[in-house]
Amino acid sequence: MAVYTDVPEPDLAAFLARYDVGRLLSYKGIAEGVENSNFLLRAEGGTFILTLYEKRVNRDDLPFFIGLMEHLAGKGLSCPLPVQPREGETLGELAGRPAALFTFLEGMWTRRPSAEHCRAVGAALAGMHLAVRDYAGERRNALSVDAWRGLFEGAGPRAGEVEEGLPAEIEGELRALESGWPQGLPSGVIHADLFPDNVFFLSGELSGLIDFYFACNDILAYDLAICLCAWCFEQDGAFNVTKARGLIDGYRSVRPLSEAELDALPMLARGAAMRFLLTRLYDWIHIPDTSFVTKKDPREYLRKSRFLRQVRDVREYGIEREGLPA
Amino acid sequence: MAVYTDVPEPDLAAFLARYDVGRLLSYKGIAEGVENSNFLLRAEGGTFILTLYEKRVNRDDLPFFIGLMEHLAGKGLSCPLPVQPREGETLGELAGRPAALFTFLEGMWTRRPSAEHCRAVGAALAGMHLAVRDYAGERRNALSVDAWRGLFEGAGPRAGEVEEGLPAEIEGELRALESGWPQGLPSGVIHADLFPDNVFFLSGELSGLIDFYFACNDILAYDLAICLCAWCFEQDGAFNVTKARGLIDGYRSVRPLSEAELDALPMLARGAAMRFLLTRLYDWIHIPDTSFVTKKDPREYLRKSRFLRQVRDVREYGIEREGLPA
Repeated sequence: MAVYTDVPEPDLAAFLARYDVGRLLSYKGIAEGVENSNFLLRAEGGTFILTLYEKRVNRDDLPFFIGLMEHLAGKGLSCPLPVQPREGETLGELAGRPAALFTFLEGMWTRRPSAEHCRAVGAALAGMHLAVRDYAGERRNALSVDAWRGLFEGAGPRAGEVEEGLPAEIEGELRALESGWPQGLPSGVIHADLFPDNVFFLSGELSGLIDFYFACNDILAYDLAICLCAWCFEQDGAFNVTKARGLIDGYRSVRPLSEAELDALPMLARGAAMRFLLTRLYDWIHIPDTSFVTKKDPREYLRKSRFLRQVRDVREYGIEREGLPA
Repeated sequence: MAVYTDVPEPDLAAFLARYDVGRLLSYKGIAEGVENSNFLLRAEGGTFILTLYEKRVNRDDLPFFIGLMEHLAGKGLSCPLPVQPREGETLGELAGRPAALFTFLEGMWTRRPSAEHCRAVGAALAGMHLAVRDYAGERRNALSVDAWRGLFEGAGPRAGEVEEGLPAEIEGELRALESGWPQGLPSGVIHADLFPDNVFFLSGELSGLIDFYFACNDILAYDLAICLCAWCFEQDGAFNVTKARGLIDGYRSVRPLSEAELDALPMLARGAAMRFLLTRLYDWIHIPDTSFVTKKDPREYLRKSRFLRQVRDVREYGIEREGLPA
């Protein structure tokens, strides 16, 4: 949640001259997106989101992300659509940063997800997985199982400051994940960060997905495992099987999961918990307290990791293994 | 620039049910206003600003501020207009805070004010001073000359950490201000914080004023003196007489300044510089570095204060004393 770069109006007006959006009427920095600066922009031609890519995003990845959103929107999936300039590249430059203009997506992210929200998210995620099958772009997941040990070592000996014994606990779980990580499952482009603040609802219906800046190629069911971590735990840390059933059955109603994918889901969910535990731990230790970035407590994902390690079979998530959901 | 309080959508929908604005379509926290949480809200009935009043604003003052905006808008001055609910008070409650809905004002604040911008601001300020003459509300200025010594004492001995000798320098200037502060000048409701980020322009024309949450009763020409501090210095600290002439002549083109007001302006400008120097100094010392509030450097106003102390007559601001501007 941040606006890292401010933009003077004459510079913005010059940037917008490339587009058929009419006269600029207003723009306001919004608290959306953690990696980039975002502005809600009103012009005579409509309402838009202007994104300035900050240095944490690799410039070489931007064509993959923008192409992905164009591909998804072309398939009818509701997501921000990069606006095409009259001529030249979709990606421009503003205030010394790569910048692009996107259509505005109505809707609001839900601060209190219900089982019905989870079902809709599962269905939308599966819809995305089907829609990207013919997307030509590829991007390696820099935060998958082979990267976790490096993140852990980067956190260093201070991991023990978060909780006594944490380094040994992570070491043990990392070994289990590295040796037991599923192979040969259906893969493709995944969202990889489909948290509640990246899913919009309008009058109870899912109205769109945003923030594709972690998207990458990986195991499809791992994306579902990330949602399991992000959507199905209560504030007090309790796992909610009704929400998990909604999420997984919503997914299966659009894209069935194979036996192998169902078998792998508990290990993938442990991996998802580890991925967010490690990035939060890394940030917790490395971001100075004087920074203006809100640091998220890594212990939330430590608790989730501990719960998910106990799960032996997907039925413990509240679902039936056989047959499609009702 | 902040969003201090987040709002769950069901709570917001319940709040909005009091208004004839139709279905809620989206809301996003915006980086606008330093004292309150602001959301840009889209509903079927239009675009609005939702303000949640945080604890730094005295709840008892809210009817004065809201009444003032209603009064000004009623006089044709462009400012956010509090939206009336179908029944009940303009001021509601949301997420445990007083909250109100305002019309959305098109336009952008200028990051690079020109002399023409300054002229327009001067004229708008004078227009506001004329428009409030029959506003019944009253609010004491808690940050006027009689409050500065208390602020200085509140900053305490650490003022010397900002610059050696600063406490003695402030003490000397405070004595000069307390003994020389003008009496008997025309008074009324002033904006008291008309910085560039509180004035919107659209295609070069001033489109409105916002953020009336420092408004209070005080000397009218003191409001102009605050603008002189806020608009007429360059980034490098140099005073720009062309901008000052634009500001003052713009003001005089709508509301003429008396001889007594012109005589008093240099002292009022020294007071304005001291007021912002002291609040910034206070915040600099008292706001912890781990806070998410951006602390503004008090030395900017120290430099302005030093310049303004040298001015003996308004002609040094680049204006003519006699006659109306061309």
